[in-house]
Amino acid sequence: MSEKDVSSLKVNQDRLIGDIHHTCQWGTGERWGTASTETGMSRLSLSDADKEARDWFVATTKDLGCKTTVDAMGNIFAVRPGLNNNVPPTFAGSHLDTQPTGGRYDGILGVTAAVEMLKVLNENWVETEYPVGVVNWTNEEGARFPISMVSSGVWAGAIAQDHAHNLVEVGGGTATMKSELERIAYLGSVPASHASTPMAAHFELHIEQGPILEAENRKIGIVKGVQAYRWFTITVRGGDCHTGTTDFKNRADALLAASKMILQSHRAATKAKALASTGILTLRPGSTNTVPGTVRFSLDIRAAKDETVEALEEQLKRDFAAIAAGEDVGNLNEGGTPGKRCEVEWRTDSVSEAINFHEDCISCVTESARGIFGDRAEDLTKSMISGAGHDSVYTSKRVPTSMIFVPSKDGVSHNPVEYTSPEDCALGAQVLLGAVLRYDRMRAA
Amino acid sequence: MSEKDVSSLKVNQDRLIGDIHHTCQWGTGERWGTASTETGMSRLSLSDADKEARDWFVATTKDLGCKTTVDAMGNIFAVRPGLNNNVPPTFAGSHLDTQPTGGRYDGILGVTAAVEMLKVLNENWVETEYPVGVVNWTNEEGARFPISMVSSGVWAGAIAQDHAHNLVEVGGGTATMKSELERIAYLGSVPASHASTPMAAHFELHIEQGPILEAENRKIGIVKGVQAYRWFTITVRGGDCHTGTTDFKNRADALLAASKMILQSHRAATKAKALASTGILTLRPGSTNTVPGTVRFSLDIRAAKDETVEALEEQLKRDFAAIAAGEDVGNLNEGGTPGKRCEVEWRTDSVSEAINFHEDCISCVTESARGIFGDRAEDLTKSMISGAGHDSVYTSKRVPTSMIFVPSKDGVSHNPVEYTSPEDCALGAQVLLGAVLRYDRMRAA
Ligand SMILES: NC(=O)NCCC(=O)O
Ligand SMILES: NC(=O)NCCC(=O)O
Repeated sequence: MSEKDVSSLKVNQDRLIGDIHHTCQWGTGERWGTASTETGMSRLSLSDADKEARDWFVATTKDLGCKTTVDAMGNIFAVRPGLNNNVPPTFAGSHLDTQPTGGRYDGILGVTAAVEMLKVLNENWVETEYPVGVVNWTNEEGARFPISMVSSGVWAGAIAQDHAHNLVEVGGGTATMKSELERIAYLGSVPASHASTPMAAHFELHIEQGPILEAENRKIGIVKGVQAYRWFTITVRGGDCHTGTTDFKNRADALLAASKMILQSHRAATKAKALASTGILTLRPGSTNTVPGTVRFSLDIRAAKDETVEALEEQLKRDFAAIAAGEDVGNLNEGGTPGKRCEVEWRTDSVSEAINFHEDCISCVTESARGIFGDRAEDLTKSMISGAGHDSVYTSKRVPTSMIFVPSKDGVSHNPVEYTSPEDCALGAQVLLGAVLRYDRMRAA
Repeated sequence: MSEKDVSSLKVNQDRLIGDIHHTCQWGTGERWGTASTETGMSRLSLSDADKEARDWFVATTKDLGCKTTVDAMGNIFAVRPGLNNNVPPTFAGSHLDTQPTGGRYDGILGVTAAVEMLKVLNENWVETEYPVGVVNWTNEEGARFPISMVSSGVWAGAIAQDHAHNLVEVGGGTATMKSELERIAYLGSVPASHASTPMAAHFELHIEQGPILEAENRKIGIVKGVQAYRWFTITVRGGDCHTGTTDFKNRADALLAASKMILQSHRAATKAKALASTGILTLRPGSTNTVPGTVRFSLDIRAAKDETVEALEEQLKRDFAAIAAGEDVGNLNEGGTPGKRCEVEWRTDSVSEAINFHEDCISCVTESARGIFGDRAEDLTKSMISGAGHDSVYTSKRVPTSMIFVPSKDGVSHNPVEYTSPEDCALGAQVLLGAVLRYDRMRAA
């Protein structure tokens, strides 16, 4: 296809937005406005609602003439044939699972925009040089099974399939990824692997989930890489005791220690110009008049460089051990009463290294945006780093990869009010379409 | 009965300990040793296990010739007739419910020792002047339904029966006290009230739950009163957001704020020579990569004087509001990054005022201990204040009341390893028996 032919293809904004909201009937979340589409989403991976969204994806891509397969992690690959089908497809995709209190765009936009790409190709009778695919990755969020992007990680060979299958859902349940894949009938027989399901490249459209594009009045983020992050589960063990009869010096209060650790992680991250966050905290036994003997919490630390994340991890390991032992870290003990020592234990749940995307893919995205914006491309696009992880982190370990961002209202994500305007969604989908077709042409050249 | 007759009556230690462990077959908790009795207890109020323990209490007291009735809070009163039955009975009692990770003695000792008293009276054909009763109070712990001593509180007219009936279990369930009373068939038709079920006096044997008696090598605590305490539920509201894409200054992190509040409550209580404890903390949405938008935690504050508790409450209301607003309290913001404001809301769950027990009851306990220890009474007993609340707090608002403490190993309670030796349990039961009989004689005099 010539540059002119590519530029003449237009995504259908209403159809795209229609697909987004259609799929949001499964797992509809908290309402935040009066319109029917003004709700968040709550579609945890491998839940019944996720199964329904998957069924839609399979039926829709099959209707569009794709060959659709499911692998052992429940990743779904839909392939539209090209003129030459002896080589791997160029893929576009993202994920249909959401946070427990997520929004309508995170992941969903990337999948529906890729499906819209198939629709545009079909209605224009476009024949690509090579096959073009759309992929829906399983449990990208890591919200239910506590490794984000776990299934693209297995595909890339970075995470063992057995380890992923045995991941237990957070929050005290007993379901594993494998048991839930079986339950909803999405445990495919093909191993989840780049060897079994090869790709030529992976493009992903995603909402920015941060405030930069909006603040700078730009429309498209050309994503050059992703910051590093690590997830941990920290267990603090003290001793249960009576709140009314046990004076402070006789307590090993696991929650008081955990509170100091959470505060210290915030301070140390501030100093390191990094991020540290705790999103999950559970305690036992959970009674108003019993000092908690056990507290378990998640810790998510991030920074642009792997070294920064590693150094912060080492720092916090020292700090938490000192806090548990009753030593004074950062004057946190000041004005309090020294108690008995607690024990602290770290478990590393996942490590996502800093990533640089592939020049070829980045240039296809850049050219695609230039094709749309012309002279204004300089003003309307921004080269940037992603704060969040994405399946593209793992695909980029095996194949040329890059991403496209569109603005998030107020920079908000992982929240029901997450919002990106229909115009911006369609612009992102248009850039995606152009990038995939340019990559197809680049392969042929 | 003469002093000599009273002194000749002896509780049966093996039978008492047998009863304790027999009833601990219902709701057996975590194992901490190898012997069959070396486990904790997990018998939340109005659970199936609690129903079984209640059924035992009803059957046992009926077998011992008592008239046994249940009131609308599920309090169970067993009465053994005296020579003159036109007046209210002198009661001994405590509670059979436990903490979720509690021990075998808290409450259970008081009820089984009162049952042992009935057995001793029966086997010795003792005729008391007036009737003698044994009572099992419902949900003393406040661990399942979040007001401690709620049912003696209703009996005393200090808590409205409807309010108590509508209490919802902690931890996210929907069961209420009334629905659970109905479910286990312990919703009696008599209103829970001192008017419907009058008492002449209330004696309660309990484990100390603190370290003092053991540390001072004393056997019996003569309890003169109970410290004041208040329970609150604090809700902190910020906003859910993405942990990877939201910088610290754009977060309203409800858990970071709650961590500061918990630390500040500990510092302020230290300064006020009071206690502050958080035993329950839940958050939403509960995902590793979402900053929690809502945190809810319990706060239990205690001190010997009502004024101290009130002043600490006022202080913490100011401090928590300032922390939520992002102001620096006690340098807790130092080294961190200021974020967006949170909101904080207090709910008062219960207020238990400082209590002074009745001179008559205290002197019956003192004499009973003197009858047992003779010259050594001075060394082996201690006049003390209870750190924990007990049903005796509420009975003392209506009738002469006092309590007897026995030592707790290492001062530990609300913990599976809670332990009091068989000898000490029996000594406490012996003092209880003597105190009730002395009170009966005092009434007649
Ligand atoms: N995009 C996104 O929210 N991915 C989840 C992984 C992460 O926490 O960064
Ligand atoms: N004795 C006892 O643990 N009672 C529960 C009420 C309290 O927390 O003090």
